Amino acid sequence: MFEARLLQGSILKKALEGIRELITSGNWECSSAGISMQGMDPSHVALTVLMLQNDLFDQFRCDRNVTLGLNHATFSKILKCAANDDIITLKAEDQPDECNLLFQSANDDKTSDFIIKLTDIDQETLGIPDTEYAATVKVPSVEFQRICRDLSQFGDTIIISVKKGCVEFSGTGEIGSAKIALKESGNVDDDEKVSVEMDKDTPCSLSFASRYLNYFTKATSLSDTVTLQLCPEHPLVVSYDIGDNGSLKYYLAPKIEED
Amino acid sequence: MFEARLLQGSILKKALEGIRELITSGNWECSSAGISMQGMDPSHVALTVLMLQNDLFDQFRCDRNVTLGLNHATFSKILKCAANDDIITLKAEDQPDECNLLFQSANDDKTSDFIIKLTDIDQETLGIPDTEYAATVKVPSVEFQRICRDLSQFGDTIIISVKKGCVEFSGTGEIGSAKIALKESGNVDDDEKVSVEMDKDTPCSLSFASRYLNYFTKATSLSDTVTLQLCPEHPLVVSYDIGDNGSLKYYLAPKIEED
Amino acid sequence: MFEARLLQGSILKKALEGIRELITSGNWECSSAGISMQGMDPSHVALTVLMLQNDLFDQFRCDRNVTLGLNHATFSKILKCAANDDIITLKAEDQPDECNLLFQSANDDKTSDFIIKLTDIDQETLGIPDTEYAATVKVPSVEFQRICRDLSQFGDTIIISVKKGCVEFSGTGEIGSAKIALKESGNVDDDEKVSVEMDKDTPCSLSFASRYLNYFTKATSLSDTVTLQLCPEHPLVVSYDIGDNGSLKYYLAPKIEED
Repeated sequence: MFEARLLQGSILKKALEGIRELITSGNWECSSAGISMQGMDPSHVALTVLMLQNDLFDQFRCDRNVTLGLNHATFSKILKCAANDDIITLKAEDQPDECNLLFQSANDDKTSDFIIKLTDIDQETLGIPDTEYAATVKVPSVEFQRICRDLSQFGDTIIISVKKGCVEFSGTGEIGSAKIALKESGNVDDDEKVSVEMDKDTPCSLSFASRYLNYFTKATSLSDTVTLQLCPEHPLVVSYDIGDNGSLKYYLAPKIEED
Repeated sequence: MFEARLLQGSILKKALEGIRELITSGNWECSSAGISMQGMDPSHVALTVLMLQNDLFDQFRCDRNVTLGLNHATFSKILKCAANDDIITLKAEDQPDECNLLFQSANDDKTSDFIIKLTDIDQETLGIPDTEYAATVKVPSVEFQRICRDLSQFGDTIIISVKKGCVEFSGTGEIGSAKIALKESGNVDDDEKVSVEMDKDTPCSLSFASRYLNYFTKATSLSDTVTLQLCPEHPLVVSYDIGDNGSLKYYLAPKIEED
Repeated sequence: MFEARLLQGSILKKALEGIRELITSGNWECSSAGISMQGMDPSHVALTVLMLQNDLFDQFRCDRNVTLGLNHATFSKILKCAANDDIITLKAEDQPDECNLLFQSANDDKTSDFIIKLTDIDQETLGIPDTEYAATVKVPSVEFQRICRDLSQFGDTIIISVKKGCVEFSGTGEIGSAKIALKESGNVDDDEKVSVEMDKDTPCSLSFASRYLNYFTKATSLSDTVTLQLCPEHPLVVSYDIGDNGSLKYYLAPKIEED
């Protein structure tokens, strides 16, 4: 028996917005630790990892590990039937072929009960090696979304460069070129501000496919801040924290510059 | 001579929103009692009946009965030229081939004068037999709109079931199934609340084409509350009251279950 | 060296909205007096003239006259990357083949640097003869936009008629006819109000292509008021003032009535 109740049901709605266009269907692995889902996009370029720890839920019970193979288009359609302040409960039997979703309105006048058929998805879970990142940058998630969208007009590559106290995003194309710089703010406690941490103060500059960065920013509503972790020859990590008990992370390999 | 002045011109705009997609053109019958229009959709499945009593208008004069054959696409285009707080006056001669629409802005700085050509529409008025309904349900109109839209994702049929103190809407399709329940509220005076009245406390469950229910909800802005009247083997009635002096009602026969 | 800094960068964004659909590319002529651009639409029907005087800019330097041949689709794409409260600086060398655009956020945390390639545009500047207009009408720009849009539903011609204390816009088509009258307000100092000035009190009525009037109203956000100047057998002038130091003007010849 698996049952997990999320008071802030909107978290699940927002998380699915960040997933459904990249991963058509995925195995949602439920264990006593929480729920996790990972998957590659159809072109096997970007890895998406969602983690919802048991503490995120006000009620959480998972007697045995359960795998919920969910079609994300269907899951998203159903979640759109939930109001933003609905309480959402996920339920499944121990060896389920369907999953139950219950939405309760804040005033309890309306209850919606959905049954989704599950799919068998053949997928292995990848281990993600620990990396020492050369640079870790936090920027307001809305600002990152806007920059990725703006630079996509110039070309299909966005270069992210981290320098002391500053992160630069740039792009070049037929119509011209663009360089957008965000300066580190004085007060780094503020969520609305930019912070830049560098290992050994070495500047770091890497190129990424703007198409994927734009996909990642579909998760913008999950968090006020997005964290970018860069390391030469390693995938970029784009992380949206879900409070203190969850995260949605994207991994994207840098483009190799053609000489 | 026919002349009717509506201080709250937005009522006419909203009523037409609830009509124009279902009925391409209709005879607006003007008499000393008020204005009425009825029509079937092109597939002859749903009957729409609009009634605007003379008391709804602050000035109303109708010397002889007049029939205004109006193309609803044209009528709607013209009404979209009225601001929401405009005063709207309808005028026509006794045997008109055109109808006059006058919009006056709240501060009287702007007056708009429109002439619509009338059409001959061959249409007989249907009598609607009195029915004793097994169940009468009032729900917030916005909630009904949302439920019809949400359940349409699951299939082309929505089942409405009335039980003691509760109305349930459900649907089933390839992607899964859904059941949405609205509970009767304690305080039934409140327009935002749900009320359920049943004849003889017999539960009643009927199936309807979701496509038509969605058409009906185009009238949502006319009223905070929508009333559903159900009776086995009789058409469902979906009513939006226009204050105390008018209504827009839709009649839709239940689907016959295939065994 | 040319450099012009505009504290209210949104002015440039709004001006381009009023230009880009009518003129695909244009020569922006920079001199010590300011920046001007004029061009005909591809069908050579309407003339558009933008004038930004040096006083509009808080910093303005133009050592030698410079012509910036700009593709307006590209220019508009880049300006959409500016926030509404950004400071915008335009820069170019004396004989430039590219132009520099710098956007600075209000709090200076974000700077965006764009380079646009310039185009050679073969275009001569037209002189606009002085005309004594028979009528000058000021109306709220939003009202003018709405009227042009509403009347376009009736046909491709809008007749503008100026009478004592009143301006009328009318149109006729297959679905019927429409006449919208705006009355002069008592207090003509108010920007939200209508004022009508006539030379010799002779009424004046001219026909124009609604398609072009609708293009002109893309500049609506530039100014609360739009000024219409009419004279029989002369082009209509539709002017949007940019504060006291600039304007966007459109010239459109009246339609010749077919007898």
